[in-house]
Amino acid sequence: MNQVANSFTELLKSRRSAMKFNPDVPISREELEEMFSLVKYAPSAFNLQHAHYAVVTDKASKEKVYDAAYKQYKVLSSSAAIVVLGDLEAYHDIGPMNEGMLNLGIIDQLEFDQTVQEVHSMYESKGDQFKRDEAIRNASLSAMQFMLIAKDRGWDTCPMIGFDEDAIMQALQIPERYVPVMLITLGKEDTSRQRPRGYRKPNGEFVTYYGE
Amino acid sequence: MNQVANSFTELLKSRRSAMKFNPDVPISREELEEMFSLVKYAPSAFNLQHAHYAVVTDKASKEKVYDAAYKQYKVLSSSAAIVVLGDLEAYHDIGPMNEGMLNLGIIDQLEFDQTVQEVHSMYESKGDQFKRDEAIRNASLSAMQFMLIAKDRGWDTCPMIGFDEDAIMQALQIPERYVPVMLITLGKEDTSRQRPRGYRKPNGEFVTYYGE
Repeated sequence: MNQVANSFTELLKSRRSAMKFNPDVPISREELEEMFSLVKYAPSAFNLQHAHYAVVTDKASKEKVYDAAYKQYKVLSSSAAIVVLGDLEAYHDIGPMNEGMLNLGIIDQLEFDQTVQEVHSMYESKGDQFKRDEAIRNASLSAMQFMLIAKDRGWDTCPMIGFDEDAIMQALQIPERYVPVMLITLGKEDTSRQRPRGYRKPNGEFVTYYGE
Repeated sequence: MNQVANSFTELLKSRRSAMKFNPDVPISREELEEMFSLVKYAPSAFNLQHAHYAVVTDKASKEKVYDAAYKQYKVLSSSAAIVVLGDLEAYHDIGPMNEGMLNLGIIDQLEFDQTVQEVHSMYESKGDQFKRDEAIRNASLSAMQFMLIAKDRGWDTCPMIGFDEDAIMQALQIPERYVPVMLITLGKEDTSRQRPRGYRKPNGEFVTYYGE
C-alpha cells in the first residue's frame, strides 16, 4: 500500500487513549471554547445536534465524578473530566434547527413543514430504543471529533465507560432527557511508562467487500 | 477567540454531509484499504474493536441496499455504500486482543486473566441493552474517523439512518451478531446546487461548565 504520510495521518496515529495524566495541569475556558467551536461541525442525524458536553474542571466537581467513576485516578489527575451526553429529546428541535434555512428561502414552507413532521413521526413511531440509539450514535460521532481536535491542540484524552450512570447524572445534576454516553478525561499524558499501542485487527478481519 | 487556522481545522470545516453525488465514479479497492488501515486506530472500549464495515461497490449489491434504504438515489449514485456495523459479541475477543501484550511481557498472566474476567463479567451482567449501546457507541467513534479520513483523501460522505434494519441485514446477509449502526454513502459530491451548511448551535447551547 502506498500510504502517503501527511499531517492528518500523523494526527490519527498519534492519538492514543491516555493511560496516565500529569496531575495539576490546568486548561483554560478559552481553550475549551475554541475546541467546542470546532466540535460543532460534526454531523448528526437531521442536523439535530444530539451531543451535549458537561465539562468539569474544578476539584470539588471532579471528586464527584471520580466517585461516580469507581475512583479511577485518571479522573482526578485529568485537566478536565468531560461527560458526553446524548439528548433523547433532540428531535423536538427540528423546527428551530431549520428556521434559518426557511428564513433565507433555501427551503420553502412546504419542505420545512414536511421535515418537521417526518422527523417527529420517525422518532415517535420508532420509540424509546431508537431515541437512545440516536443519542448514543450522534454523541459518539461528536466525541470522536472532539478527541481528534484535542490531540491536534496538544491534549491527550481517554474515552471511558467505567462509571455508574445514575451516580454521574446525580453528581452533575444532569436532566433526565440526557443519556451519559461516555466520560472523556483530558490532560497531558505522563508517557514515562507508556505501553505500546493496543493490537489492531488487520483490515481483513473488520472489512467485508461486496462485489468485484 | 484566537482560532489558529491549520490543515486539520480546514478538514473539519470542509467535511459536510454530501447531498448529491456525481454518479459513475468508481473507487478502487486499494484506496478503500488504505482508508481502513487508518480507521483501525480509532479507540474502542477495552480495545475490543466493535466496528465492522460492509462495503458495497457493485451495481447489483448497491441496488439491494438502495431498496433497503427506501430508494434514496444517493445510494445508487455513490461510489461505495458502506454499512457500519457494531459487534454485539465483541467482548468475546478480549483474550485474543490482549495476547500480544501478554506474549511480549507487557502485561503478566494475572493482569491478562483479570482483564478477560472483568470484561466478560461487565458485558454479561449489564446485558443486552449494554451490548447494543456498546456496539453503537464504538462503531460510531470509528465511523466519524472514517468520514474524516475519506474527506482528507478527497471523498465526500453522508451518514444515513434512513434504512430498514432487517432489510439491510438480509440484503447483505449480515450475521445476527451485528447491529447496523449507520449507512455511509461515499463519492464525489455534485456541488452544483449545494446548500449552505446547516445551522450549528453556539457553544453555550451544548456545553455546560462546572466549576469556575
